[in-house]
Amino acid sequence: MSGEATTKRKRLPRAVREQQMMDAAVTVFARQGFHAASMDEVAERAGISKPMLYLYLGSKEDLFLACIRREADRVRTAIVSALDDEHGADLPPDRALWYGLSAFFAVVAQHRDAWRVLHQQAPAHGEPFAGEVAALRSAIVEFVAVLIERAVAERHPRGRRRPTADDLGALAHSLIGACEALADWSVTRPDEDPDVTAARLMNFAWLGLDNLLRGTHWPRPR
Amino acid sequence: MSGEATTKRKRLPRAVREQQMMDAAVTVFARQGFHAASMDEVAERAGISKPMLYLYLGSKEDLFLACIRREADRVRTAIVSALDDEHGADLPPDRALWYGLSAFFAVVAQHRDAWRVLHQQAPAHGEPFAGEVAALRSAIVEFVAVLIERAVAERHPRGRRRPTADDLGALAHSLIGACEALADWSVTRPDEDPDVTAARLMNFAWLGLDNLLRGTHWPRPR
Repeated sequence: MSGEATTKRKRLPRAVREQQMMDAAVTVFARQGFHAASMDEVAERAGISKPMLYLYLGSKEDLFLACIRREADRVRTAIVSALDDEHGADLPPDRALWYGLSAFFAVVAQHRDAWRVLHQQAPAHGEPFAGEVAALRSAIVEFVAVLIERAVAERHPRGRRRPTADDLGALAHSLIGACEALADWSVTRPDEDPDVTAARLMNFAWLGLDNLLRGTHWPRPR
Repeated sequence: MSGEATTKRKRLPRAVREQQMMDAAVTVFARQGFHAASMDEVAERAGISKPMLYLYLGSKEDLFLACIRREADRVRTAIVSALDDEHGADLPPDRALWYGLSAFFAVVAQHRDAWRVLHQQAPAHGEPFAGEVAALRSAIVEFVAVLIERAVAERHPRGRRRPTADDLGALAHSLIGACEALADWSVTRPDEDPDVTAARLMNFAWLGLDNLLRGTHWPRPR
């Protein structure tokens, strides 16, 4: 209203305060669950009044969705940045997976409550909450499936027994499931170095894939 | 009141009707989520009146807990029975894991909604719901950790570099996470044979473990 300079001065604090409110909300949602979480508690943690919390960020549903979007975006950005920094497109598949996992476990270690909101809370509360996390997960599963496909192609340039789309999908889902379970495990262990967690998964998963790519199979009983 | 025979005749239908109500409830909870699920819909699906539903099984919370307990028990029983049938205690660790996984994917394929309630709904709704599933999960993680420990001991009877408790825990969590993710993947694929799903996981996970047990590690970049 009173000129651009004033508007800008007012906008910066608003953005900062919104982030503080969302930080408070992520903590409360992670610890209480979406339904038990109270806007009173979020407002108190953020050091503002409840009416102002509603004015800034809307209803509890709006706030939950905003938190999920921010945290999903944080995970996605962390992985993308790590790969960009390492020239991801040119990396061998196992290296690309390593940098992605290393970035993922680092962001989970720094934002434990965010991980709980994304992984435990969001999927149980239907749309639009579940969909935001499902979209992130699908993108990561696709990324991993492409890495596995590239690893297969590099090893068997004219391979006859290429894995089917279902084989690739199942492998990528297994790997991401192992990754999520290790993230759950790691958030209860503040002393675990995220790179050690990433190495645990590479040792477990990539070596298993490596055997599969060589055509080795576990001998299934008849 | 009117003699044992009458009491028995009355008890049998009650047990059967309760199972039908819980079947209906599992479907509604899986599709609507705990909070959106309505007792009206459960009663309608089960073909009884809402007051009778409350009389039989209590509040929505009671019903949700009863469903979680029944389905967790079903999974546990399926795994235990499969291993008992195959003399689980005497099996080599990879065989024991195979029979466990095969039973697990079979029960998930037969009870898809139950899996959704256990894996997506229960963990998000705090105690006592989350705790029931966490207890089942811990028991399975422990079982897998013991199998891995036995596999290590068989391969390295006097091994110097035994894995630590954290190594075993992380591996068992990874494997169970991969297993849960494959279960999620499989419930959207009615044509997938549960034994094929179990074999996918053995190929992926046991072969990776096998490499680790041989002392092979993925070469982590410096």
